[in-house]
Amino acid sequence: MWPKNCWYIAGFAQEVGQKLLARKLLNQAVILWRTAQNKLVAMEDRCPHRLVPLSMGELVEDQVQCGYHGLRFNAQGACTHVPGQDNLPKAAQVKLFPVVERHALVWIWLGAAELADESLIPDMHWLDAPGWTPTTGYHHMKADYRLLTDNLLDLSHETYVHRETIGNSAVADSPVVTSVEGGLIVRAHREMPNIDPPPFFSLMLNHTGKINRWQIAVFMPPGMNMTDVGAHPVGTDREKAAIFRVLHLLTPETEHSTHYFWAVCRNFRLEDAPLGEGLKKAIIHTFDEDQRILEVQDRCLREEGMPSIPQAAVKVDIAPVQGRRLLNDVIKREQENPSAVIRPLLMADDAKVAQPPAIAAE
Amino acid sequence: MWPKNCWYIAGFAQEVGQKLLARKLLNQAVILWRTAQNKLVAMEDRCPHRLVPLSMGELVEDQVQCGYHGLRFNAQGACTHVPGQDNLPKAAQVKLFPVVERHALVWIWLGAAELADESLIPDMHWLDAPGWTPTTGYHHMKADYRLLTDNLLDLSHETYVHRETIGNSAVADSPVVTSVEGGLIVRAHREMPNIDPPPFFSLMLNHTGKINRWQIAVFMPPGMNMTDVGAHPVGTDREKAAIFRVLHLLTPETEHSTHYFWAVCRNFRLEDAPLGEGLKKAIIHTFDEDQRILEVQDRCLREEGMPSIPQAAVKVDIAPVQGRRLLNDVIKREQENPSAVIRPLLMADDAKVAQPPAIAAE
Amino acid sequence: MWPKNCWYIAGFAQEVGQKLLARKLLNQAVILWRTAQNKLVAMEDRCPHRLVPLSMGELVEDQVQCGYHGLRFNAQGACTHVPGQDNLPKAAQVKLFPVVERHALVWIWLGAAELADESLIPDMHWLDAPGWTPTTGYHHMKADYRLLTDNLLDLSHETYVHRETIGNSAVADSPVVTSVEGGLIVRAHREMPNIDPPPFFSLMLNHTGKINRWQIAVFMPPGMNMTDVGAHPVGTDREKAAIFRVLHLLTPETEHSTHYFWAVCRNFRLEDAPLGEGLKKAIIHTFDEDQRILEVQDRCLREEGMPSIPQAAVKVDIAPVQGRRLLNDVIKREQENPSAVIRPLLMADDAKVAQPPAIAAE
Ligand code: FES
Ligand code: FES
Ligand code: FES
Repeated sequence: MWPKNCWYIAGFAQEVGQKLLARKLLNQAVILWRTAQNKLVAMEDRCPHRLVPLSMGELVEDQVQCGYHGLRFNAQGACTHVPGQDNLPKAAQVKLFPVVERHALVWIWLGAAELADESLIPDMHWLDAPGWTPTTGYHHMKADYRLLTDNLLDLSHETYVHRETIGNSAVADSPVVTSVEGGLIVRAHREMPNIDPPPFFSLMLNHTGKINRWQIAVFMPPGMNMTDVGAHPVGTDREKAAIFRVLHLLTPETEHSTHYFWAVCRNFRLEDAPLGEGLKKAIIHTFDEDQRILEVQDRCLREEGMPSIPQAAVKVDIAPVQGRRLLNDVIKREQENPSAVIRPLLMADDAKVAQPPAIAAE
Repeated sequence: MWPKNCWYIAGFAQEVGQKLLARKLLNQAVILWRTAQNKLVAMEDRCPHRLVPLSMGELVEDQVQCGYHGLRFNAQGACTHVPGQDNLPKAAQVKLFPVVERHALVWIWLGAAELADESLIPDMHWLDAPGWTPTTGYHHMKADYRLLTDNLLDLSHETYVHRETIGNSAVADSPVVTSVEGGLIVRAHREMPNIDPPPFFSLMLNHTGKINRWQIAVFMPPGMNMTDVGAHPVGTDREKAAIFRVLHLLTPETEHSTHYFWAVCRNFRLEDAPLGEGLKKAIIHTFDEDQRILEVQDRCLREEGMPSIPQAAVKVDIAPVQGRRLLNDVIKREQENPSAVIRPLLMADDAKVAQPPAIAAE
Repeated sequence: MWPKNCWYIAGFAQEVGQKLLARKLLNQAVILWRTAQNKLVAMEDRCPHRLVPLSMGELVEDQVQCGYHGLRFNAQGACTHVPGQDNLPKAAQVKLFPVVERHALVWIWLGAAELADESLIPDMHWLDAPGWTPTTGYHHMKADYRLLTDNLLDLSHETYVHRETIGNSAVADSPVVTSVEGGLIVRAHREMPNIDPPPFFSLMLNHTGKINRWQIAVFMPPGMNMTDVGAHPVGTDREKAAIFRVLHLLTPETEHSTHYFWAVCRNFRLEDAPLGEGLKKAIIHTFDEDQRILEVQDRCLREEGMPSIPQAAVKVDIAPVQGRRLLNDVIKREQENPSAVIRPLLMADDAKVAQPPAIAAE
């Protein structure tokens, strides 16, 4: 269950070079590569001759050569060479997918190709804009991508799942204010003013006194998630807060597995490489904990025939339930109108710092 | 295919303590634990919030705390705590199962709860009564529990499957007398008078001359099996025979896997711990051999769509066929009358030693 | 999809002795053994009592004794012994299959037994006739046997799949002439006159100058394949060429796995044992490469629901397409007439050396 007329992330830009990268996306086997001119190519990973994966072959003279009988295909998917034969079979055409590099990511369009419009690519400038330093990584999760979004929209789980790392009771105990923007974005905002800094924040801010902290879970269908975190010493300017935009960018692999591309982008200590390394380790450990519970949850739900969740709703479900509603709307819109597309909004505005929800609600 | 309105064994009593034990029984995921007051609790292993197994959580303040969002449930299955929220959702109720500790075993009732009556628990006093010393163990078998009973009701297989351990041709060559008691118990009796003692018995009785030996396979639905073994030197009193009651207590895990709880209970050399150790090793080896053939048999039958067996019947099939008939009667009774229960009988009477069948038949 | 009224290879003759060999052929579980008088026996691998595989038992007194309850079956499949019982159950009869040893192979007939006629066994005399030395081996391939034949009938894949071993561009670049014989044999002939010898041939012929070389892929349904290879120094007599008859003899195990019995038979350096060893190593390496691509191809085709291939046809498909046609004819004939059998032809005639196709076409 996913919309097709939107841009999905196929990989990090630096993953794709002048060799074949095979990846399954939305149940579609794809190969990604670059020509000698650095042009990105995304093709079906299937030789039109006898249907073996083209990824078993290799790039030869800027073309894909099948590893079985050596047919070659160019960046347009056309067959350019058949060993021992001069005329080229027209039927031997490999399917191409629109593909674009932006914000250090490779974006692919798996829906109706004529609708692929680069202006519909979500803005993820935190990955490559000045003023931000990203730390990136990847997790392969054997779980429905929607379970990952459910998890990200309710950060109360930090207290239980991540109690060995980032969790503490301040998160679960602070109230959440949920809002919807433009029918496409959910925000679940937790404001934690005047608290003792957890060790992590104390270290970041190099400050042991009280801090103001906030945390906003943001979701935009189909799988764009951000955890927007800010902190500053009490008495200092909120506008000068240290900010993390943690991006959790989800592309379904199959109904029950997900490519989870993530990035922690910070607006402070930009050149501090050891800090980046430390963040990476912590994040990997944290997402490993999520992985353990989400993969078991997926297996349990499958065994029960995918019942709807939550079965018993509590307060922390407000944002995830809202997120599912927006996703379902998008899917329904596409079913009713095959040329409907997702037109993304900006997930966070660098120009104005997030205000406490009571103010934001004005 | 199993009856539900009867007590099944969920585990040995010492397996269940103040932590969560997860076990699947009759396709139902269950957690077992004890309160601080030592009360046994059996619950569905499924959080009513987002359906992850409660066994991924832990006991906190004598309650089960889910490992995902920290909801807590008491020994009655009621939700007692939701982080960040005061009112408690009524729908968040975990299903409870009747559970009783008796004879060093934990018994669970997975059928209609209102029919759960402790007087219906089978008598397995050999596990905890004075005059008996048990040696216990567990095998997980990837086979239909009915194949295990078939195997136990025909001990002629000892000669072939267990020829490296307890088998010898005396067993296969002695005639079997099969009887049914109270429409619920099958007994298959083999009397082996005046034989040379196999090394095992020679050692047990500390005697190298001729012995009288008998062996009775007893079955009571759904999965209670006993191998009742006696031996004494020729010329001594049968009433003083050394006796083993070998219990094979079967609980289906799924249609094709079984929890096999076993115990060898003896009425002699009660304090001889090294003897107990030796017995345990021998039994494990023996049941490993059964496991090998039964798991292959289950796989073959599955591939053929579970045809009825035996396809060609021989004499040794009389008791297993009778056992299946009693089991099917019990299942049919429950299908026709949802409040029918199994009312167990005593599988062996310690007050009178088993007599040779001709005498027993008088 | 395979015909049943024909002889299939069950194994190499030396694989079957006075012990039980279990093998699945055409989805049928079979045991193969020899009596004390060296008579071959092929039986269903299934005890008629409680359906465990007879291969879990053993040969006792020239009969098969089941490993569960010890029933015994003779070379006619009849039950000859039931432990503890004198009368023998008629229903306990094991199914037998016609089986013949010829050309160092064991041939089995899995179709209608009354049609099994030894004159229908394909001539594979290169395995045991004077003037030929065979080197044999076996690969288990997790792929439809028809994909193996497709692969063998188009040797152009050598250039790509086997470029690290036997491949070179001469093969892919030489034209192929395809012919059909007697409605049952396809021949795909590549003539490579006056070429520089690849190192392998240079070594074989002990000659570094130009050679004439040919290669003929031969196929006869259901799974008999031969690669007929010849080479001789330019200017010498074609009749005196060094010849390899490479036999690729395929028996389906299931729809998606194949027993691949192979043999490289040569008519020169007959006593050269180190040469045989070297050939064996090279062949194993080569077939391992085929295995890798064919198993992936099978998996991909399965996932797509077995579409017909090739989807886009090129010249090198002529022979494989022709081969499939002959195989489908044979299957259709059997469906229309259950007593139709395959009457094999000779795959290569030792009396006359293969002529270049233009001449052969006269
Ligand atoms: S399968 Fe790709 S060239 Fe033949
Ligand atoms: S799934 Fe158990 S508390 Fe949420
Ligand atoms: S299953 Fe073979 S003898 Fe019983």
